[in-house]
Amino acid sequence: MNDYLIENILKNTLIEDIGGGDITTNAIIKKNKTSTAKLIAKENGIIAGLDFFCKTFWLLDKNIKIKLVKQDGDVCRKKEICANLTGNCAALLTAERAALNILQHLSGIATATSKFVDIAKKYNVKIADTRKTLPGLRILQKYAVRIGGGINHRSGLYDHILIKDNHIKAAGSIENAVKSAKNISFTNKIEVEVSNLSELREALKMNVDIIMLDNFSPEKILEAKKIINGKALIEVSGNITLDNLEDYCKCQPDIISVGALTHSVKALDFSLKFE
Amino acid sequence: MNDYLIENILKNTLIEDIGGGDITTNAIIKKNKTSTAKLIAKENGIIAGLDFFCKTFWLLDKNIKIKLVKQDGDVCRKKEICANLTGNCAALLTAERAALNILQHLSGIATATSKFVDIAKKYNVKIADTRKTLPGLRILQKYAVRIGGGINHRSGLYDHILIKDNHIKAAGSIENAVKSAKNISFTNKIEVEVSNLSELREALKMNVDIIMLDNFSPEKILEAKKIINGKALIEVSGNITLDNLEDYCKCQPDIISVGALTHSVKALDFSLKFE
Amino acid sequence: MNDYLIENILKNTLIEDIGGGDITTNAIIKKNKTSTAKLIAKENGIIAGLDFFCKTFWLLDKNIKIKLVKQDGDVCRKKEICANLTGNCAALLTAERAALNILQHLSGIATATSKFVDIAKKYNVKIADTRKTLPGLRILQKYAVRIGGGINHRSGLYDHILIKDNHIKAAGSIENAVKSAKNISFTNKIEVEVSNLSELREALKMNVDIIMLDNFSPEKILEAKKIINGKALIEVSGNITLDNLEDYCKCQPDIISVGALTHSVKALDFSLKFE
Amino acid sequence: MNDYLIENILKNTLIEDIGGGDITTNAIIKKNKTSTAKLIAKENGIIAGLDFFCKTFWLLDKNIKIKLVKQDGDVCRKKEICANLTGNCAALLTAERAALNILQHLSGIATATSKFVDIAKKYNVKIADTRKTLPGLRILQKYAVRIGGGINHRSGLYDHILIKDNHIKAAGSIENAVKSAKNISFTNKIEVEVSNLSELREALKMNVDIIMLDNFSPEKILEAKKIINGKALIEVSGNITLDNLEDYCKCQPDIISVGALTHSVKALDFSLKFE
Amino acid sequence: MNDYLIENILKNTLIEDIGGGDITTNAIIKKNKTSTAKLIAKENGIIAGLDFFCKTFWLLDKNIKIKLVKQDGDVCRKKEICANLTGNCAALLTAERAALNILQHLSGIATATSKFVDIAKKYNVKIADTRKTLPGLRILQKYAVRIGGGINHRSGLYDHILIKDNHIKAAGSIENAVKSAKNISFTNKIEVEVSNLSELREALKMNVDIIMLDNFSPEKILEAKKIINGKALIEVSGNITLDNLEDYCKCQPDIISVGALTHSVKALDFSLKFE
Amino acid sequence: MNDYLIENILKNTLIEDIGGGDITTNAIIKKNKTSTAKLIAKENGIIAGLDFFCKTFWLLDKNIKIKLVKQDGDVCRKKEICANLTGNCAALLTAERAALNILQHLSGIATATSKFVDIAKKYNVKIADTRKTLPGLRILQKYAVRIGGGINHRSGLYDHILIKDNHIKAAGSIENAVKSAKNISFTNKIEVEVSNLSELREALKMNVDIIMLDNFSPEKILEAKKIINGKALIEVSGNITLDNLEDYCKCQPDIISVGALTHSVKALDFSLKFE
Repeated sequence: MNDYLIENILKNTLIEDIGGGDITTNAIIKKNKTSTAKLIAKENGIIAGLDFFCKTFWLLDKNIKIKLVKQDGDVCRKKEICANLTGNCAALLTAERAALNILQHLSGIATATSKFVDIAKKYNVKIADTRKTLPGLRILQKYAVRIGGGINHRSGLYDHILIKDNHIKAAGSIENAVKSAKNISFTNKIEVEVSNLSELREALKMNVDIIMLDNFSPEKILEAKKIINGKALIEVSGNITLDNLEDYCKCQPDIISVGALTHSVKALDFSLKFE
Repeated sequence: MNDYLIENILKNTLIEDIGGGDITTNAIIKKNKTSTAKLIAKENGIIAGLDFFCKTFWLLDKNIKIKLVKQDGDVCRKKEICANLTGNCAALLTAERAALNILQHLSGIATATSKFVDIAKKYNVKIADTRKTLPGLRILQKYAVRIGGGINHRSGLYDHILIKDNHIKAAGSIENAVKSAKNISFTNKIEVEVSNLSELREALKMNVDIIMLDNFSPEKILEAKKIINGKALIEVSGNITLDNLEDYCKCQPDIISVGALTHSVKALDFSLKFE
Repeated sequence: MNDYLIENILKNTLIEDIGGGDITTNAIIKKNKTSTAKLIAKENGIIAGLDFFCKTFWLLDKNIKIKLVKQDGDVCRKKEICANLTGNCAALLTAERAALNILQHLSGIATATSKFVDIAKKYNVKIADTRKTLPGLRILQKYAVRIGGGINHRSGLYDHILIKDNHIKAAGSIENAVKSAKNISFTNKIEVEVSNLSELREALKMNVDIIMLDNFSPEKILEAKKIINGKALIEVSGNITLDNLEDYCKCQPDIISVGALTHSVKALDFSLKFE
Repeated sequence: MNDYLIENILKNTLIEDIGGGDITTNAIIKKNKTSTAKLIAKENGIIAGLDFFCKTFWLLDKNIKIKLVKQDGDVCRKKEICANLTGNCAALLTAERAALNILQHLSGIATATSKFVDIAKKYNVKIADTRKTLPGLRILQKYAVRIGGGINHRSGLYDHILIKDNHIKAAGSIENAVKSAKNISFTNKIEVEVSNLSELREALKMNVDIIMLDNFSPEKILEAKKIINGKALIEVSGNITLDNLEDYCKCQPDIISVGALTHSVKALDFSLKFE
Repeated sequence: MNDYLIENILKNTLIEDIGGGDITTNAIIKKNKTSTAKLIAKENGIIAGLDFFCKTFWLLDKNIKIKLVKQDGDVCRKKEICANLTGNCAALLTAERAALNILQHLSGIATATSKFVDIAKKYNVKIADTRKTLPGLRILQKYAVRIGGGINHRSGLYDHILIKDNHIKAAGSIENAVKSAKNISFTNKIEVEVSNLSELREALKMNVDIIMLDNFSPEKILEAKKIINGKALIEVSGNITLDNLEDYCKCQPDIISVGALTHSVKALDFSLKFE
Repeated sequence: MNDYLIENILKNTLIEDIGGGDITTNAIIKKNKTSTAKLIAKENGIIAGLDFFCKTFWLLDKNIKIKLVKQDGDVCRKKEICANLTGNCAALLTAERAALNILQHLSGIATATSKFVDIAKKYNVKIADTRKTLPGLRILQKYAVRIGGGINHRSGLYDHILIKDNHIKAAGSIENAVKSAKNISFTNKIEVEVSNLSELREALKMNVDIIMLDNFSPEKILEAKKIINGKALIEVSGNITLDNLEDYCKCQPDIISVGALTHSVKALDFSLKFE
C-alpha cells in the first residue's frame, strides 16, 4: 500500500478536525501532562485499521506509546480492550476522535465483509468490492475489505478494462467495444458487463477474460454458467445482501461483488477511556 | 461553505478514480462523441449533493449541460428522473461513478436525517450531527445533515469548547476545566458533557452555556431538566435511534445529537442511464 | 496549535528564500564545517516565536543544537544573548534570515501587545486582537498576541458570529440578522457591532451575547454601559492607541480589541552573530 | 510576476479566514442578494495591491464587477473612493477582510517607500528593499516597494551573491570567500558587506561588483567612496530612517537599502462601505 | 488522460522556470504589447505534445491565439511552420522555453518510436515502452509513445503483475510467486520475466498470461516460441536498438519493449520566432 | 541545494510509479523478509545522483542500509559494484525502478558533461548548461552537470537577465532593451545574445556584462573576440557537439553552453541485482 497517500489522508483528517487548534484541550490541559488510555470495543466485530489509528496519534506526537492487544483481522468482543496508550495527554485528547473515526469505519467494513465471506467460502466463491466507495477513502476501504477476507476488484478506471452498459450503448455494440479495447492494451484483462443472455453470447464470442452478470437471478446465472462453460471468469453483481447471498453462492460463480461493503458502512463502535 | 475545500475533495475523488486515465473509455469512445444521460433515483429519499454531482462532471468538461429536475432537499421517488445530462460522452462515462458516489452518500445522510427530524420536530426538538464523521468528508456530510433538516454541532475542535469525560478526568474536576476555559476565550460558548446528576450540578454551578447529557435514560433526562431549570441549553446524546427517538423527544431537550447520521450512512441508490 | 499548518508556513518561508539554493553559502562554505552562533537582542522587548525560530533551522538540519537562554514571553534587553546555536555552518547561514524574520515579527507583536496589556490590566480590561492580520500569518500572529498577554478574538469567519455594519445593512435590520443567526447555530455566541445607542438598544432586545461598541468615545461608552447593564459582554474597538488607551480603560469595558497589534507591526530587532 | 504564486497566497488567505464557512454571512444573507459597496481610503497615501484586492473577490465569485477609480501607485486621500464594487452580497462580505488586509499592507509599504524615495531622488540615490520580509509575503511586498518607487534588492538566496559578515567569518577571509564565489558562477554579480575600511580595501582588491557599507556613518561613507572611486557600486545599509535619510543621501551612494520598508509596515487604512 | 495531473506538470514547469518573475521580460517589454510568433521545426520528425505546448502558454494568458498547422502525429520537416501564435508579448516570451522544452522532448520520443514501429509493423510486431521513464514525466512520455505508433506497457507498479528476476529470487521460485499472485487478484494479468528456457517452462506450467523473454538472442526466441506454442503472449526485451530490431522482429514475438524510447530521448529541435 | 524541492521530486516519482500499491511485490513478498542487493554499473561513465538514489529507498523505508562504494563524480566501469543495499525486501523491490531511473538519467548527464569538459579544459574554456531542461527536473539536471565538471548557467528566468533575439525584436533595439534592464535591477548581470557583429557592437556600446555569440562559426568568434577586447565575458552557443567542440574551444571564449547536456540525455545503464 502507498504510505504517502495514506499519510496524506490521516494528516487531512487531523487538519479537518483541529483547524487552528483544539481550543478545549489547549485551555484545560497542561502541556506536559501524561495520561494513559484504553481502546475498548463496544460491539463484536472484526477490527481493521489499527495501523492508521496509531499513526494518527503519532502524527501529533511521535512519543505516544501504544501496545496493541489486537491485530487487524482479529475478532474483538464488546468491552474487550484492544490497545493501551500512554503519552502526552493533550495529544491523546486532540487525536482521539480522528483516530476513532477511521478505526470504526474500517472495522465496520471488515466486519460486514467477513459476514459475506463466511457464507461464500463454503461454496468456494470469492467476495469482492466495487468502485462504489466514499470520496478519497478508496485505498483505506479496499484495505479493510481484504482484512475482512474479501478480494479487491479494480482500484480505479486506470487498472482494468470493464465495459459496462453505458459503454456498450455508446460504442454501438459489445463487438465494437471489445475490439477497440483489445487494440490498445495487452497488459489488461477485459471484462464485459452483460444484462441478458444474448449480450453474454456476444461477449463470449469476443474472447473476453471476465463476464459480469448484472442483476441476474440465481436461475439465470445457472443458465449463463452453462453457456460460458469455463471460457471466462464469472462475476455476479447487483443488490446482493446477506439475506440472499447463499442463493447466489449456490450457483458457484467465481466472484460475487458487493457495493454495499463500501458505500453503506455501519461503523463498529469503539471508545477511548482515560484512566 | 468553502468552495475551495470542496473543489479539492471533488478533484481528489476524480484523481483517485481516474489515476493515469480511464482506459476503458479511452479505448472505446471517440473523443468528440456526444451523449445524453438521465440521473435516476432507484429508491425513495431526500436528494442532497446535486451541486457536487454537477461540479464533478464540470471538473472534467465545463461544457456538459445539466438540467436539474430536482433541487437539494427535494423528495425523490424510485424511478424518478432527477437530472438530464448532455455532453461529451467520454467525460460523462469517466466522471459517472465519482459523481454518483458523492450523491448517493450525501442523499443517504439527508434521507436518514429527515427521518429523525420528522419525529423530533413534533416535539420542537432539534436534531444535530456530531464529530463522528468520515475522514476528509466532514464539510460535505454536515451540509447533507442541514439539507435533511438537521442542525450542525461544532465543525471541529477549533470552534466550540466541549468538555468531555476524558477532559474532566485529565483536569481533575469540572470546576478546574471550566475555569481554565473561561480564562482563555470570550467568543466561544462552553459546553460540558455530564454522565450523572452530581456532575450536572457541578457544571451548572460554573455557569456553562450548554449541558450534554450523555447516555441518560428519558427518566434521568426529566430529572436533569428540573435541575437545569432553563439555566443552560440541554443536549442529549448516546445511541439514540429511530426506534427510541420519540421517547427522548418527549423529554423535550433542546437538541438531540446523533452520531450515526454521519458515521453509519446507508447510501441512497441512484444510477446514470445513457440513452 | 496546529503543528502542520505552522510547519507548512515555515517550509514555505524557507522555500521562498532559498529557491533553487543559497548560492553564496554553497559557493563559499565547506559542506561539513561546524559553527557556533549567538542570537542577540538588539532592542528591549518581549521575545516570542522561539519554537518557530528553532524549527526553521531544524527543517534544514535536524542536528543543529540550540540552547535557549530565553523562553517565549520573557523580557529581553538590548545586547542580551537569547540563544546559543551550534551545528552545520551552511545550514545556520542559509536558515538565518528566515528564522530571524519570523522571530522579529512575532516578538514585535508580543512587545506591542504587552504594552497595551500593562495599562489595561490595571483596570481589569482584556486586550484582544482582530481579523486584521497579515495574509497566511494569522495563526502565528494570534499566538504572539497571547504571549504578549492578550487574548484572541475569533480565529476566522468560521468560529464566531459577529454581525457588522455591512451585515446589518444587507439584512435590513439587527433584528432580522440576529434572528437568522440564532436559527442556524446553537454552539456559537452572537456578537453585534453597533455604532450608536439606538442600534445598541435594538441589539440588546435580541438577547445577544456580546456587544461591540464601534468608534464610541469614552463618554458614549459610559452611557452604553448603563444601558447594557450586565446583559452582554462589552467589546470596545476603533483606533485605540497606547496614547488614548487609558481613557478607554477607565470606562471598564470587558474587552478592548486593537487591529494594529497585527496589521501594523514594528519588528523587534535581533541578530545572529557567528563566533 | 508569477501569477500562480500569488494566486496561491490569495487562496490561502481566503482559506485561513473562511475555514469551513463564513457562518455569520451564511446565516444572515440570502444567497442571491446583490449589493454595491465602495472602497474608501481612510488615510492619505500611495495605493498598492488593487489587482490582488480584486482577485481576492473574484476567487470567491467571478461575476463581481469592480470599477477601479485608482490605479496602483496613485495618491489616495482620506475619504476618497478608490473603487466601486457590485455583485453577490455574500461573496462581498466574505472576502471583504481578506481583500482589505492585503490592500492595507501593500499600500502601507508603498506609502512608506515613496516617502524615502521622495527624499532620495533629489540626490539621485535609489531606495532598495532587503530580505527582511514577512514569511510567505516577499513577492507581494517587493511588488509594493516597486510601486512606491523603490527598487528591489535580490529576491532570495538564489539569485545574487552577497557575502556577509558571518560568511566572511566562516570562510576565514574576504579573499577566500570571493575566490570561491567567482569559481562557481559567471551569471551572478558578487557583493560584499564590509564593516570597516580595511575590509573594504580587501573586497576591492578582489574586484567585486557591489560593496555594501554596513552601519557606516555619513562621514565614513564619504571616506569609503574615495577609496572605491567608481570601481564598484556602493550600497549603504543599517538603521536608516526618514529622519536621518537625507544625511546619508548627501554622500550619494548608489543605493540605500531599508529593511523597515518590509519588516515594520504600518498599514494604510481602507474600508469597504455597503450602500 | 488525466488533465489534472498534466496541468500540474505544466504549472510546475512554469513555476520552475519563472520563479519570482521573468526579470528580463518584465524589465524590457511593455505590459500591453501584442506580438506574433511562429513555431518552426528545425529537424524532420513526428510532432507530439502540441496540446501541452498550447496549454503552457494558456496557463500564463488565456487570450493567446494559437493556430495549429500540424496535429500530434504529423510529420514535420525542417523549417516548416507548425503553429502561429498571437497574443500578449510578455506572456509569449515568458512561456516560450517551458513550452518548447516539453514539445521537443515529446516529439523526440514520438520520432524515435515511429522509427521502431515502421520496421516492426512489417512483421506485425508491436513496439511497447517500459517503466524506464524520467521522474514525474511518465504520463506525458507514454502519450508520446502512443503518438509515435507504439503501445503502452503497464503504467506503474499498480496496474499489472510483472514478476521479474528479483521477485523470483525473493519468492524462491516462479511457482511460488505466481501462486501468490493468482491468489490475490482476479482482474490483473500475470506476466513473468524469464532468462532461460528452464524458467520459461516453469512459468508456462503455471498458466501465466504473458512471458517476457529477457535478453534472449533471436535464435533463443525462436526456440522459446516453439515451447510457448500460443499458450501465452510473448514480449521480448533487452537492449534492442534500431540496428538490431529487424532480427528480433523476424522471430515475430507479440511485443518488443524498448526502454530507450523514454530513458534516452534525443530532443527534436523546434524554435519560436517572433515577427 | 534545496532539499525540499528534491524530496518532492522523489516522492512524486514514487507516487507516479506505485500509485495505489506495488501489486506484484505485495502479492509475492512476505512483509518482514530482508534482502541484499548490489547496484551494478552496466556501462563506463561518471556516476551522479547517489544521494537521490538512496533517498528514494529511504522514503519507503528508513531502515534500509546502503553502503556506497562510489561517490558522485567517480568513474564507474561496466560490471563494477557501486553500492550494497540491505533491508526490507518489499521496499527494495518497490523503489528499485524509481531509484534507478533517477540515477541512470543523472549519471548520463554527468558522463556527457565530463566528455565536453575533458576537451574544453585543455583550452581553459568552461562548459555550461542552458534552460533547455526537462520539465520539473532542472534542479537535478543542473546538479548532474556540476558533477560532470560543468558550470551552471542561470537557474531560470528569475535570476539573470539574458536579452535574446525575440526580446530585441519586441523592444525595438538592443539599446532600448538594455536601458530598460539597467533601470530596474542593480544586482543582476546583463547578458545579450547577438547573431552578428553589428548587434555585437550595439551591445558593447551599452556596457553589458556578458555577450552570447549565437551560432557564430569559429572564424566569426575570433573576429568578435577582437571587437569585445575584454570588455565583456564571452559565451558561445549553438549546436556545439563533441565532434566540433575543439574547433570552438580553440577560439577560447569564456564559456561554451550546450543544450544537449540536458535536453538529449542518454541514460547510463545500471541494474540492481538481488542475491
